[in-house]
Amino acid sequence: MRALAKRKPGPGAELIEVPAPRPGPRELLVRVKAASICGTDLHIYNWDAWAAGRLKPPLIFGHEFGGTVEEVGAEVRSFAPGDLVSAETHVVCGRCFLCRVGRAHVCEKTSILGVDRDGAFAEFVVIPEENALDNPRDMAPEIAAIQEPMGNAVHTVLAGEVAACTVAVLGCGPIGLLAIAVARACGASRVWAMEPSAYRRDLASRMGATEVVDPGATNPLEFILERTEGEGADVVLEMSGHPAAVTQGFKMARLGGRVALLGLPSRPLEIDLANDIVMRGLTVQGIAGRRMYATWYQTRELLASGQVDPKPVITHRFRLEEFEEAFELVRSGRCGKVVFQL
Amino acid sequence: MRALAKRKPGPGAELIEVPAPRPGPRELLVRVKAASICGTDLHIYNWDAWAAGRLKPPLIFGHEFGGTVEEVGAEVRSFAPGDLVSAETHVVCGRCFLCRVGRAHVCEKTSILGVDRDGAFAEFVVIPEENALDNPRDMAPEIAAIQEPMGNAVHTVLAGEVAACTVAVLGCGPIGLLAIAVARACGASRVWAMEPSAYRRDLASRMGATEVVDPGATNPLEFILERTEGEGADVVLEMSGHPAAVTQGFKMARLGGRVALLGLPSRPLEIDLANDIVMRGLTVQGIAGRRMYATWYQTRELLASGQVDPKPVITHRFRLEEFEEAFELVRSGRCGKVVFQL
Amino acid sequence: MRALAKRKPGPGAELIEVPAPRPGPRELLVRVKAASICGTDLHIYNWDAWAAGRLKPPLIFGHEFGGTVEEVGAEVRSFAPGDLVSAETHVVCGRCFLCRVGRAHVCEKTSILGVDRDGAFAEFVVIPEENALDNPRDMAPEIAAIQEPMGNAVHTVLAGEVAACTVAVLGCGPIGLLAIAVARACGASRVWAMEPSAYRRDLASRMGATEVVDPGATNPLEFILERTEGEGADVVLEMSGHPAAVTQGFKMARLGGRVALLGLPSRPLEIDLANDIVMRGLTVQGIAGRRMYATWYQTRELLASGQVDPKPVITHRFRLEEFEEAFELVRSGRCGKVVFQL
Amino acid sequence: MRALAKRKPGPGAELIEVPAPRPGPRELLVRVKAASICGTDLHIYNWDAWAAGRLKPPLIFGHEFGGTVEEVGAEVRSFAPGDLVSAETHVVCGRCFLCRVGRAHVCEKTSILGVDRDGAFAEFVVIPEENALDNPRDMAPEIAAIQEPMGNAVHTVLAGEVAACTVAVLGCGPIGLLAIAVARACGASRVWAMEPSAYRRDLASRMGATEVVDPGATNPLEFILERTEGEGADVVLEMSGHPAAVTQGFKMARLGGRVALLGLPSRPLEIDLANDIVMRGLTVQGIAGRRMYATWYQTRELLASGQVDPKPVITHRFRLEEFEEAFELVRSGRCGKVVFQL
Repeated sequence: MRALAKRKPGPGAELIEVPAPRPGPRELLVRVKAASICGTDLHIYNWDAWAAGRLKPPLIFGHEFGGTVEEVGAEVRSFAPGDLVSAETHVVCGRCFLCRVGRAHVCEKTSILGVDRDGAFAEFVVIPEENALDNPRDMAPEIAAIQEPMGNAVHTVLAGEVAACTVAVLGCGPIGLLAIAVARACGASRVWAMEPSAYRRDLASRMGATEVVDPGATNPLEFILERTEGEGADVVLEMSGHPAAVTQGFKMARLGGRVALLGLPSRPLEIDLANDIVMRGLTVQGIAGRRMYATWYQTRELLASGQVDPKPVITHRFRLEEFEEAFELVRSGRCGKVVFQL
Repeated sequence: MRALAKRKPGPGAELIEVPAPRPGPRELLVRVKAASICGTDLHIYNWDAWAAGRLKPPLIFGHEFGGTVEEVGAEVRSFAPGDLVSAETHVVCGRCFLCRVGRAHVCEKTSILGVDRDGAFAEFVVIPEENALDNPRDMAPEIAAIQEPMGNAVHTVLAGEVAACTVAVLGCGPIGLLAIAVARACGASRVWAMEPSAYRRDLASRMGATEVVDPGATNPLEFILERTEGEGADVVLEMSGHPAAVTQGFKMARLGGRVALLGLPSRPLEIDLANDIVMRGLTVQGIAGRRMYATWYQTRELLASGQVDPKPVITHRFRLEEFEEAFELVRSGRCGKVVFQL
Repeated sequence: MRALAKRKPGPGAELIEVPAPRPGPRELLVRVKAASICGTDLHIYNWDAWAAGRLKPPLIFGHEFGGTVEEVGAEVRSFAPGDLVSAETHVVCGRCFLCRVGRAHVCEKTSILGVDRDGAFAEFVVIPEENALDNPRDMAPEIAAIQEPMGNAVHTVLAGEVAACTVAVLGCGPIGLLAIAVARACGASRVWAMEPSAYRRDLASRMGATEVVDPGATNPLEFILERTEGEGADVVLEMSGHPAAVTQGFKMARLGGRVALLGLPSRPLEIDLANDIVMRGLTVQGIAGRRMYATWYQTRELLASGQVDPKPVITHRFRLEEFEEAFELVRSGRCGKVVFQL
Repeated sequence: MRALAKRKPGPGAELIEVPAPRPGPRELLVRVKAASICGTDLHIYNWDAWAAGRLKPPLIFGHEFGGTVEEVGAEVRSFAPGDLVSAETHVVCGRCFLCRVGRAHVCEKTSILGVDRDGAFAEFVVIPEENALDNPRDMAPEIAAIQEPMGNAVHTVLAGEVAACTVAVLGCGPIGLLAIAVARACGASRVWAMEPSAYRRDLASRMGATEVVDPGATNPLEFILERTEGEGADVVLEMSGHPAAVTQGFKMARLGGRVALLGLPSRPLEIDLANDIVMRGLTVQGIAGRRMYATWYQTRELLASGQVDPKPVITHRFRLEEFEEAFELVRSGRCGKVVFQL
């Protein structure tokens, strides 16, 4: 089969031809129909410090995908060939304390698809039955794929109150864009989005943001305080990892409010804990992955009911052969979610 | 001033002329612009057992209203003449354990407007400053009035998870109708409504119910089980007090699900606690009043953002002189919310 | 091996000799060291309506046990021969919505050990690896066994706030007794216990009850209201299933308080929902099983730290041959937990 | 009356003679019996940057106290002369969104006793009726006083789960010491305390710490990881504000765990949000003040039931005239809580 792989340490990737993998007794072999590019994939492609420290090439990367079951292992009970599936990309141990008390998304033995084991930028991928999620057969494969990052958005938004709350979304990459729509669908009264890319600000409006701010032109903190009579937003969703956004994010939240952090700052930041968090009585939530598997069912309901339409977020489609162009586009930020169609 | 009063025990009411009340130092005198009829008012009008046991005539009744501040007591700080206000109708002691730990809505010393003290079916009403809620000046007074019952709906819906949940609403009186819209606005994926009155079933659809069922024609429990592959609804909102609805309501909820009870059955009911509640792991919530005052702020946000449009619920308007016709209509059930315009 | 079995429908049981079971690839064969008698076992022994409707003899019953691993299936990774294990007795499907969102304890496909599949009143029992919980090797097997019912108590007590709360425990069978100790250990300020058996009232005191009431001599509702200046207990734990206890239980809770129902009334009861639950703003929790597996870890911590000492609850020990005497004793109520030693 | 006051900007304080204050209509005049020294008082005494920026001398400082009601204003209903009272030291507006939704402890218009208005290092102090809390008449005044900082400990410990959890307490000043006892009383299975002062480490043991660590001799992070098989503590309570403690605190928490921050770092700190909070799925809580007034009732229950004995925390008593010696002692750290007896 064809696959996009990192064959050795260093930037870039190669389109290779390898034998298709074989499913174990409790695994599924899935024929990938659509696989989308995550920020993590760009880190891998660029071979940044994180990638260099974590990955062990050779590796087929990519983890957001939708595809049809091609073959099932002997002990698989819930799936049959032809099913259209998505996948939770955290393959967890299932035996540790964290897995057994409902925190599998932070299992220390997590093996991530496309990071720690071969992934989905390929014609076929193997996943554990447990990680597979069923979809309606008429769902577009790219929508099946996008449920994974949409799950991050759902997890972040629903990690606390959001109904009848004002919300600030800092950073409008695909997850930020989806978070705007999820927040609105779940009752957020006003959603203000901050994003330097004009392309993504336009998408933010389409996803339902009440107002969209260019932090290069308008001070986001002042904007939020002005909109809220100086009180701040009930909920702040930090989805950029950008130092200024994170630092301002704490100050942007209403006293006693909630700040959910999904974005990953690339280095330690100076935080004024006393004035920004302690005395303001904030709750700060680190958000990792998706709740396994409550988030997936919530995502499914929001899609099936039509309350969230993720389609505008998918802006570009490529063939696997066009991977250089695709990654270049992701790097530019002039896109929403970029999908490989197989 | 003119006022609709219960002058002595017994059915009916009288339109009387009395001196307007005077506000105390921490009270507001409000010129009532719109006052809507609650089920409680019908109980008072009909003089049922509850009313006979609770009320001490003479009494001006009515408690859902919107009006403009006419005069403020000497110590009032937050309001000025001309403000358009609504009122929380539970006047609480503020000193007891319940009031001081955030459960003022069940304060044992509650005096209810229009039940325990003179109410709002009158040209003027006096309320404590603390109970007044400010509104935009351009809000229609009848919308100001309807926030009180909408608050019951908001309290019920948001007493637990609702985003990405399926919801069954049992009973589509005005609060049930508003609960449909609130649940949808807060992310409920599907909302099924049960209501015997064709008039109200039509309103339920307009308020956003996914499907509406006539319990006289279709078994509601079977309907819900069929729609959910036998699993039941995530959330059941019981808003009728009808014995069959309550009994079926518990069986209609998904295992581990939530049943919120707002409707008041007129007599004790046989409940199969072991099979319906204990072994099914349900959480059953008794819902009284509105959270003071979190619910009011939530209601305000849902209205101001346009996420909930309560207007279709207001179906009929009368002058105070037409009260007999108005109460007759409420009794018939061929209406949504009925409002007196003053 | 020897085993206590229900060979055919009808009261009683038989001590039989059968081949020891064999573990499947993901199962453990456990040599039972101690197995305690649950109320469910008495229902089975007595062959009441529930047992007649549910069980399919022949069946080895018994499900609360501690024992050493004798043999492990080929795919078992977490256990080895010699480990001292306890078992979660709900064998669940692992694939349904409920299992996958953290509500496995109400999985509809649950097969209960000793009810739906052969249990632990035997020299050997087979359990899935997933259901096994490891214990310190020096733990007494009867303590290993009692973690199962103690888990019910932990689940009930910790299903909501309990620290700095007043608590009423209705019914002092073994789970009620353990709930007293768990509530105290978790910060309950006063724990009042109600129990008709003098033997068990004495145990209730030993487990830490602040005061113990004989409902035959003192009206429990009046007692609680007197102790709380008429306000009621913050938390009511109903563990008897007795009609009067359940009915009074709702009235005994403080406004806005919590009532957890674990006891199973044998028939539907008349409940005054309007006055007892809705207008009082109560939260009523149906408690089934144990949270899988958070409850087990909580139980382990409470035992390991010495905060809860369950030993006084274990009052009698028998050999399997003495089963008639053992069941007679359980039926009498003049005991705490009764254990078979093997 | 005699009072300890800051008469002008700068270090130190003066014992002055001033007329006793007079209570307003909704205020109480309290004869102070015991007043304890808070870290805030030391900041004021030392006149650090915070004090210089916030205080407007002349001001009587001190805010933790117990005393008897001497006189009540005309509208006071809940208190009478002779009552032994404590005081919530945050005097809030009662009218803002935060006050009205249950977050009064972060009201932006808070006036703090002894900081923004005259305090309790005096023979008499005036407080609003609303801020007064009643005590049993036989309670020692110094215990009445210590409920205020104990409330901080209760608020911190009970801001999330603690029963059956392992807990790390960083910093054993009086609030940290009380937090140890509160955590134990509320079911924490093991409580590890970190404190550089030998004097306070000894107190930590007396308050119930499982083990006490000198961070100058043992690396606290390594200690916690060793005790927890590398997994971390379920709950981390940061009560020192010390940079190393805060930074290590995040790393010390179990994945998906809770870190409550009460200590106030004196400057911004470098925090590795990505690795320490986001990817570890932590919840970080800024803790300000006490919940008004739920925390006070919880504190009362824990004291009245004997579950928490705060007496060992009170180590030194002085007359007001000995203030220089008292503050010198507080500055040294060789003490628990230091009390002025009047």
